[in-house]
Amino acid sequence: MQLVDADMQRVNQMILDMAAANAEMIPEIARHLIDSGGKRLRPMLTLAAALACGYRGDGHVKLAATVEFMHTATLLHDDVVDESELRRGKPSARMVWGNQASVLVGDYLLGQAFRTMVEVGSLDALAVLSRAAAVIAEGEVLQLVAAKHLSTSEEQYLQVINAKTAALFSAATEVGPIIAGSSAKVRAGLADYGTQLGLAFQLVDDALDYGGSSMTLGKKVGDDFREGKVTLPILIAAARGGDDDRAFWQRTIEQGDIEDADLDHAIELLGKHQAIAATVERARAYGDKAIAALEVLEEGPYRAALEDVVYFCVSRVS
Amino acid sequence: MQLVDADMQRVNQMILDMAAANAEMIPEIARHLIDSGGKRLRPMLTLAAALACGYRGDGHVKLAATVEFMHTATLLHDDVVDESELRRGKPSARMVWGNQASVLVGDYLLGQAFRTMVEVGSLDALAVLSRAAAVIAEGEVLQLVAAKHLSTSEEQYLQVINAKTAALFSAATEVGPIIAGSSAKVRAGLADYGTQLGLAFQLVDDALDYGGSSMTLGKKVGDDFREGKVTLPILIAAARGGDDDRAFWQRTIEQGDIEDADLDHAIELLGKHQAIAATVERARAYGDKAIAALEVLEEGPYRAALEDVVYFCVSRVS
Repeated sequence: MQLVDADMQRVNQMILDMAAANAEMIPEIARHLIDSGGKRLRPMLTLAAALACGYRGDGHVKLAATVEFMHTATLLHDDVVDESELRRGKPSARMVWGNQASVLVGDYLLGQAFRTMVEVGSLDALAVLSRAAAVIAEGEVLQLVAAKHLSTSEEQYLQVINAKTAALFSAATEVGPIIAGSSAKVRAGLADYGTQLGLAFQLVDDALDYGGSSMTLGKKVGDDFREGKVTLPILIAAARGGDDDRAFWQRTIEQGDIEDADLDHAIELLGKHQAIAATVERARAYGDKAIAALEVLEEGPYRAALEDVVYFCVSRVS
Repeated sequence: MQLVDADMQRVNQMILDMAAANAEMIPEIARHLIDSGGKRLRPMLTLAAALACGYRGDGHVKLAATVEFMHTATLLHDDVVDESELRRGKPSARMVWGNQASVLVGDYLLGQAFRTMVEVGSLDALAVLSRAAAVIAEGEVLQLVAAKHLSTSEEQYLQVINAKTAALFSAATEVGPIIAGSSAKVRAGLADYGTQLGLAFQLVDDALDYGGSSMTLGKKVGDDFREGKVTLPILIAAARGGDDDRAFWQRTIEQGDIEDADLDHAIELLGKHQAIAATVERARAYGDKAIAALEVLEEGPYRAALEDVVYFCVSRVS
């Protein structure tokens, strides 16, 4: 984080500039989300990837800001779709300003993201980021359809998180070598790093939603369960459990009939079948692949920083 | 329409290709909207503008399809925001597939629009279209805030429709000369043509929502009224009316307390104060400006076609 700190300050300023608009509500909502303690992991990845490839210019700051805006727009729409009341422990934008404003301000942020990435002038970077925008939305639609089905296979679930989470991580890291003019090999390596890191990140998030193996980071537990979202821990526990377990998951996740004591029972079942441990194990494996993908880069402080991001993401849970 | 018919067939095929996705729901929803009898006015404008500038290539077909996709994405989100039950006389997508799917599929269509416009490879066209995407969303937010206020000035209202409607018309016509490599003068002229045409089009739509001066085209009357939308006819009637009228508009539009007989009374008041005629008159004036803006083009069949579009739009109402 210290390595990219000066550039992150510029990203933060760029984000405030991009959120400016004639309608006052827009910067208000943008600030609500942007100031709410997000980790800014994605823009940091774009900065570090570009600098790791020897980029010397201003484009990486703009692209980092657009990546964060794409992410923020997704959060706004996700909260509407999931009817979420909280986001990072604070009331979600839809609870403060309403669903209508959340939909439209999300659209505005996405539009501003595209405007800003066009200014950078790299058609290759535009192709990667615009493809990611479509893939993310497609992943969300797939999740909407698959969300409540225990029959979802692990492979199908990985497809969903590949689209809804890993695609943006991958785009965030791939645009770095693109604007640095790196070789196809370096570009492919950093894109792969982003994909693997994104998968690890999402699986850790899935585990944390049930408390992880410890409960260090204070993430609110049980949101996915209450929203009836099928995630990997549940798929594993349901597959490993007997008929009674299956009836429990069908009632709670598929039918949405959830009582007060059910979350505790869910966490108990996940523990009994080592479903959290198995999820974290898979996250670790993706993390290892992410670190291996970095071999396309020469050793140095930025490659070490990108490795540290992997350790940080995986260590959130263990 | 006949002039661009062959290219429109290619636009239609491109639209079907762009709507393809792993999630079946996406092409279903896209087809629901795209096949529902829309006029395809915007893509036709892009084709005609490009051909009028002597363009010989394939980019205009892709850009026309992206313009229609941007429009379709806006419709999906608009219906969610306005809680509309009908769109062009059929159940809106949100009534068939739900708000959640409408939000996410709108995002997908927008993402696909950006992917496709990047393929055309014109950074200038990308700048125009991405700016339009942000301006449209900003206009929708402004309308959300202004929607129910009778204190909205005519100037403020024109700003809203400039953003939410005219910006896409203008982008649709401006990208034609851009990819044709036309002069800055021609480009500015066609952008202005689109803006003026868009303003005329929206004001005619506002008038038609109260039946227009005739009721030839079978548009469902009263949607704006029932949704409590302030439009120019109401602003004019409220400004010209007395205290009784004002109380009526406050109750119906600002407070949303609408009874069965109110639409008839609203139409009566609009007639009494010549509010529809005044709205149509302003639309005509914008139509005249649109035709004047075409003077940057040499005379010929495409310029004549672009003039015909203006006559067609304005004649819908009178």
